[in-house]
Amino acid sequence: MDLLVATNKEDTVGYGDDHYTKEVTELIKQQCNNDNIDVYLFVGGTPANIAFLKQALRPHQGVLCASFGHINCHEAGAIEATGHKVLPLKCGQEGKITADQVEAAWLDHYTDGNQMHMVQPAGVYISQTTETGAIYSKKELMDLSQECKKRELFLYLDGARLGYALSSKDNDVSLEDLAHLTDGFYIGGTKCGALIGEAMVLVNDKYKKDFFYIVKQDGALLAKGRLAALQFKGLLTNNVYTKICGKANEYGQQIATTLKANGFTMFADSPTNQQFVVFDNKRLKEFEKKYNFAFWANKDENNTIIRICTSWSTKKEDVKELLKDISESK
Amino acid sequence: MDLLVATNKEDTVGYGDDHYTKEVTELIKQQCNNDNIDVYLFVGGTPANIAFLKQALRPHQGVLCASFGHINCHEAGAIEATGHKVLPLKCGQEGKITADQVEAAWLDHYTDGNQMHMVQPAGVYISQTTETGAIYSKKELMDLSQECKKRELFLYLDGARLGYALSSKDNDVSLEDLAHLTDGFYIGGTKCGALIGEAMVLVNDKYKKDFFYIVKQDGALLAKGRLAALQFKGLLTNNVYTKICGKANEYGQQIATTLKANGFTMFADSPTNQQFVVFDNKRLKEFEKKYNFAFWANKDENNTIIRICTSWSTKKEDVKELLKDISESK
Amino acid sequence: MDLLVATNKEDTVGYGDDHYTKEVTELIKQQCNNDNIDVYLFVGGTPANIAFLKQALRPHQGVLCASFGHINCHEAGAIEATGHKVLPLKCGQEGKITADQVEAAWLDHYTDGNQMHMVQPAGVYISQTTETGAIYSKKELMDLSQECKKRELFLYLDGARLGYALSSKDNDVSLEDLAHLTDGFYIGGTKCGALIGEAMVLVNDKYKKDFFYIVKQDGALLAKGRLAALQFKGLLTNNVYTKICGKANEYGQQIATTLKANGFTMFADSPTNQQFVVFDNKRLKEFEKKYNFAFWANKDENNTIIRICTSWSTKKEDVKELLKDISESK
Amino acid sequence: MDLLVATNKEDTVGYGDDHYTKEVTELIKQQCNNDNIDVYLFVGGTPANIAFLKQALRPHQGVLCASFGHINCHEAGAIEATGHKVLPLKCGQEGKITADQVEAAWLDHYTDGNQMHMVQPAGVYISQTTETGAIYSKKELMDLSQECKKRELFLYLDGARLGYALSSKDNDVSLEDLAHLTDGFYIGGTKCGALIGEAMVLVNDKYKKDFFYIVKQDGALLAKGRLAALQFKGLLTNNVYTKICGKANEYGQQIATTLKANGFTMFADSPTNQQFVVFDNKRLKEFEKKYNFAFWANKDENNTIIRICTSWSTKKEDVKELLKDISESK
Repeated sequence: MDLLVATNKEDTVGYGDDHYTKEVTELIKQQCNNDNIDVYLFVGGTPANIAFLKQALRPHQGVLCASFGHINCHEAGAIEATGHKVLPLKCGQEGKITADQVEAAWLDHYTDGNQMHMVQPAGVYISQTTETGAIYSKKELMDLSQECKKRELFLYLDGARLGYALSSKDNDVSLEDLAHLTDGFYIGGTKCGALIGEAMVLVNDKYKKDFFYIVKQDGALLAKGRLAALQFKGLLTNNVYTKICGKANEYGQQIATTLKANGFTMFADSPTNQQFVVFDNKRLKEFEKKYNFAFWANKDENNTIIRICTSWSTKKEDVKELLKDISESK
Repeated sequence: MDLLVATNKEDTVGYGDDHYTKEVTELIKQQCNNDNIDVYLFVGGTPANIAFLKQALRPHQGVLCASFGHINCHEAGAIEATGHKVLPLKCGQEGKITADQVEAAWLDHYTDGNQMHMVQPAGVYISQTTETGAIYSKKELMDLSQECKKRELFLYLDGARLGYALSSKDNDVSLEDLAHLTDGFYIGGTKCGALIGEAMVLVNDKYKKDFFYIVKQDGALLAKGRLAALQFKGLLTNNVYTKICGKANEYGQQIATTLKANGFTMFADSPTNQQFVVFDNKRLKEFEKKYNFAFWANKDENNTIIRICTSWSTKKEDVKELLKDISESK
Repeated sequence: MDLLVATNKEDTVGYGDDHYTKEVTELIKQQCNNDNIDVYLFVGGTPANIAFLKQALRPHQGVLCASFGHINCHEAGAIEATGHKVLPLKCGQEGKITADQVEAAWLDHYTDGNQMHMVQPAGVYISQTTETGAIYSKKELMDLSQECKKRELFLYLDGARLGYALSSKDNDVSLEDLAHLTDGFYIGGTKCGALIGEAMVLVNDKYKKDFFYIVKQDGALLAKGRLAALQFKGLLTNNVYTKICGKANEYGQQIATTLKANGFTMFADSPTNQQFVVFDNKRLKEFEKKYNFAFWANKDENNTIIRICTSWSTKKEDVKELLKDISESK
Repeated sequence: MDLLVATNKEDTVGYGDDHYTKEVTELIKQQCNNDNIDVYLFVGGTPANIAFLKQALRPHQGVLCASFGHINCHEAGAIEATGHKVLPLKCGQEGKITADQVEAAWLDHYTDGNQMHMVQPAGVYISQTTETGAIYSKKELMDLSQECKKRELFLYLDGARLGYALSSKDNDVSLEDLAHLTDGFYIGGTKCGALIGEAMVLVNDKYKKDFFYIVKQDGALLAKGRLAALQFKGLLTNNVYTKICGKANEYGQQIATTLKANGFTMFADSPTNQQFVVFDNKRLKEFEKKYNFAFWANKDENNTIIRICTSWSTKKEDVKELLKDISESK
């Protein structure tokens, strides 16, 4: 965080955009061990997703994704607003999809004699971590990547919470892997410690041409690129990115352990900072007085699935207090 | 059919468009027993659906429909291409949705604290007959209509196959009912005996303003309106519409009865001209040599669900032959 | 016209679509002397334009066209509705644009240091005849074609009134030329004697892939293709197409000659069936009682530019009467 | 600027979003002397324009604007990408349009008998300052406002450079006027001293409903609203906004005076920080080595129109140096 404060001060000195943006591009190329990538800084995750998918899809095409996928659920129809159908694949509670599901969807489309009456699947969208906090293993990503290549589908990874994945205890995927296995992905800043900004990494040459026009058209271009660039310079130096996210994961795991030890049912198994758990509504009312939870879904009449989310800014004392309250809540 | 031939000849005489279009509008007003409706003639069902939904939806809104709904499956993403998400509700094999499902979807949206991150449901799309040949009863339509009014949702009915519904043995819904219970619907011509044309009926005043602009923008405007108008004049006079569709229904029922008698499993129960049935793949191969079926879905490795569809132009002899072949196919 | 009547009757016999559509495709390939083209039948000119431009443009691209261009003026924003800007080039009263204008527009875009903030021109749309009845010569089309190839722009020709161009006394352009010089064009049926239908000819392989999906998505697909196919079979046999349009051109020239002889000012010089002429408003009121004119523009307080349009269905007697009324109108 | 630095530091303390956003909303309500407005903070000008116009336009409608208008020229087709045509009105070098032009455009549309074939004008977009640095007077805005009300058109003002207008020596328009005369406008931050952010003010109740959905759908929502809120808190306290912009205007006027005194031809007369001037290309080459100009347009073979733009961060010494170089450049 000190790095962020230091660069924050620099803001007011007013260095040129180019300087910082180029520096961040270099940093990302190094950490991806890949010189043949393009980097663009975005104001947020939704505009990043819009831009990549707008770039990659032709008018009659749609994108496969987990039914829990952010683009399917929580972007207010942003993808459809660009004219494209989101093609959800039924996912388990971990929010992941498999290479087999992708193959089945592809076969479904092309074995129908009337495929021209249906939206053509052109690529696959996944999230790392998923929307319920799970992560894809390297093996799973390799399978997805291979299937996509076989079917001429792109593989795009939404990394809004990538920091929490990279720093998770179960993780075996590196930035270098992503810059090899996907056609494009973004490194999330906003949800991982930055004031603003997501760093899009274009891997496949096919999607690089004229990308800047698309970004501008969507109004996703930061007039002052250095604002985001400074954030990423801070995050990507000395492992700040994984350090601060790792801390949040640690809190997340402590909370999960305590919840389970106290008989709570977890909705999904998450090795990261987000924990989805079933609360009976009475107890929920009590906790809501003191803590901020996100509503996820009604389980039944008497129980609700909620999301408990720690972040880089979560305080140790607050976690302790929560653990204590959970233990005493029965 | 004689009427159609007669009017076809008139084509070449070249009466003005206005004359015929006005006549058809009058005919439809009479049969709907409703003077306060607007009528537009379209070239096909997809452009009709596009136009109504484009007219009725604001940019952040989507339309609820059965998961089997034509707009969800077989219009190549036409609705998404106008910027709107189709919000599918899980339907049974009959392809129908209920007032309760609409209520639940509405409550789901508005009880989520983050509804602004999701697509707002603004209306309901249903098909009569449904995509699997079933029909909504008057009671079911009244319930849907009431729920929609309560939630300020529109109710739009896709009548591509309305003729088969109106002439079905189980039907208790009239055009007058539709012009009372829905906010808009169209009377299908193309699939019900016309060379071309669907007649859109706008019921709710709210959706009438500037509709002509929308139709023109989508290129759905027939330069020569009389072509479609003549078709509808023919169809709507002396009950030609329900007569020719009724004949097709009769054949459909004969086929269903024979299939069931011979131990076939029906996928959905249909009182109209479309029959969905499970064929083992070996037998299917035989039948495909002689008949045109539509593939519907794979049931499992060895069995396929197919659609058998009769129409106004189906010949009696062909049905007889099929019935015979079914009986002997074991 | 006899051919049209004959095929009209065939309609009711109900031959399969494939038969007729294939026949028309063959006819067009022959007349274009080009086997490597794809042919699609559309319900109208606006959906044909929408489909080609949707197919050819990426999201950040627009299409150059004459400021009088149909897509710029009279399609209710259909192209913008697909997300693309129409980039009008100032044209003279004949409604034509030149290779030099295309070059200038291209240079304008790419010499601006901020081109990514502007819509990228990706192709050129022209109309033959133009919207004011003029025609491009073979030399003009060759220049446009060469410039487009040089700049990697497509050249698309809207042939809503192509029949009147092909049969004009000044014409030196053949269907074969169009299938060589453009990347795609359509042969207009609706305004040239058909009941319905335009025949899209895709020339450049680049724009052929998945075109059917686009057509379906726009709802421009005729469920009963034979309806349009029959029209084109009639039009393209024994030169019916140019014969009936040539007749209309002849009337148009007689009217132009008489107007000029009687001191009227022509707005644009047209060798085809459309004549644009200045009428003083008093005289216009008289003529409007008897004839159907299209309003084109107000010239000044006292004078209006109107369009007089003959067609394949114009009657000889009516033209005679008009010529007489013009001569006597002073 | 001190205020900005102070609040920048606060960033890291992490106050909740609500607190600051509400405070800024209150500040703007006070300065507009209008409690009945809604305030939304955006990441940039293009997303702000997209959101308002998406909210205000129905699918068949377009927006009138000066041919120089930012939405017409420099947003990479962002408005067309939402499906709407921008309807440019020819403007003079000052980039302004008049109430009379709006009236003429409206009459043009509605007196054409075929208006349904054209894009319906639904509102007017203006910029203050204009794209060439001029400002609308209160009288001009009142006329536009009155004409718009008469024709049921909205009036929307793009205030990307509003600070320079409000602090211009010729200005007689207040924020209160804008919150009375327009239906919506935004107060530009990014180009007027903020790190990021534009503050949209919705005036007409008609455009308030569900606006948040639209903002979210376009990905224009700042995940961390306080980032922009803090900027506006700084700008809108103690007249920081007009003070820093006024300084830039002052420099702009000094440059204009010196240019004119040295025989340069100004392209447009600007009382603000942007100056458009004709440079012969030889002299331009010299200046470009030392200064950053924006290319505006080629005047002729030998001369170029460039934009000289001062801002809140321009240094006094640099202006002095430029003035000296201009004086000595002959």
